[in-house]
Amino acid sequence: MNPVFDQVAFLGFDVFGTVVDWRTSVAREVEPFLARHAISVDPLQFASDWRGLYQPSMEEVRSGRRQYVTLDVLNRENLDTVLTRHGVDLAAIPVQQRDELTKAWERLDPWPDSVAGLTRLKRRFAIGALSNGHIAGMLNLARYAGLPWDVIGGAELSRSYKPQAVTYQRTIAAVGRLSEETAMVAAHNDDLVAARENGMRTVFVCRPTEYGAQQTKDLAPIQDWDIVVTSLTEAAEALDC
Amino acid sequence: MNPVFDQVAFLGFDVFGTVVDWRTSVAREVEPFLARHAISVDPLQFASDWRGLYQPSMEEVRSGRRQYVTLDVLNRENLDTVLTRHGVDLAAIPVQQRDELTKAWERLDPWPDSVAGLTRLKRRFAIGALSNGHIAGMLNLARYAGLPWDVIGGAELSRSYKPQAVTYQRTIAAVGRLSEETAMVAAHNDDLVAARENGMRTVFVCRPTEYGAQQTKDLAPIQDWDIVVTSLTEAAEALDC
Repeated sequence: MNPVFDQVAFLGFDVFGTVVDWRTSVAREVEPFLARHAISVDPLQFASDWRGLYQPSMEEVRSGRRQYVTLDVLNRENLDTVLTRHGVDLAAIPVQQRDELTKAWERLDPWPDSVAGLTRLKRRFAIGALSNGHIAGMLNLARYAGLPWDVIGGAELSRSYKPQAVTYQRTIAAVGRLSEETAMVAAHNDDLVAARENGMRTVFVCRPTEYGAQQTKDLAPIQDWDIVVTSLTEAAEALDC
Repeated sequence: MNPVFDQVAFLGFDVFGTVVDWRTSVAREVEPFLARHAISVDPLQFASDWRGLYQPSMEEVRSGRRQYVTLDVLNRENLDTVLTRHGVDLAAIPVQQRDELTKAWERLDPWPDSVAGLTRLKRRFAIGALSNGHIAGMLNLARYAGLPWDVIGGAELSRSYKPQAVTYQRTIAAVGRLSEETAMVAAHNDDLVAARENGMRTVFVCRPTEYGAQQTKDLAPIQDWDIVVTSLTEAAEALDC
């Protein structure tokens, strides 16, 4: 095992893209909604468009232009935006249906290796969500997907969004560890850049189809991450779990 | 099943006394420490004395006389107090040993029914710690005792201590529920009084030996709690899990 992991006791996980496949799952949830309202957009495209508003909406909070609100609030607003962009008259769709569709983000399928990998990693390490998702969303998602978290950390604990330093730092403090006793597990290089800047160890999980076959980003590590793998079972193997 | 539970989706648990047997477990951890330092106090008495400082130390925070600190900080201070009261010269005991002994509160054995009961309850309800313990302490305790929490709520989320209303309210909000969609599970009537005042459903678990054979408190319900049981497996039974 990589010796920098000798003192690691906690693994924090990015969730959307790293542990669960949001794109095909959201598309599946969106499909009957689009059909019912005769909105002719490819569900996978709709999922990507919805996700495309994720970073800009969090940036409003990170920049201080907006007070922290939980991710479900942003996802709900972004749904209306993406519907409008596709020419949909919002007044024609009951609020309750749009509220309900937003919960699609709590019904995301794990990648095929995720549950087995987390279960193995949990033998040796405390494991927790370190996501921009809010606590209730992470809780509901864990129960849907069978993710065996020991603890739910992340954005809501610090009322901030990754890659802000305080998001990592607050979770590290909450689990009672020094930063070098923790590692970040993520499919996104920018997440690991920030985690490393905050003293965490780093595990890059390559997820080359998170954005579909045409994905151009995060296909390879951009720094010498401590561990580089293509699945969470491979991560468990690399960490002797 | 009691029909008021039809809409309940989340069970919050008191932990010390309700889920784990702190008294005999702390006594076990304290025993070699007392022997090493030739402190002649019965370990069970020492555990009770230590625990006896728990409520007064939290009251400093509840009253606003002191800013919130996590429970491990209070337990650590209270250890020095109880040692001093038993005539021990603190200067004779390395700080590190007293720090280490404080972690006894993270190595508490579950009552015999706890893990089986929680595992059954988790099938139907999301389950979480709603304790005055801090997140790291609850995390370490869960891993030690095998408590399968979906989420760790409680004091640290709100920087307050039960029975302050905000402690319950913050956890209810964090799990994304209305108060009537949640229930408090506790062996302490005062905890359930506060939970009910905050709109939660109530499950009383009678633990008549939490404080030993001479226990005089919480031997019976003092209000018409929604469910009254003597174990978490019985709670699972009562809730059709």
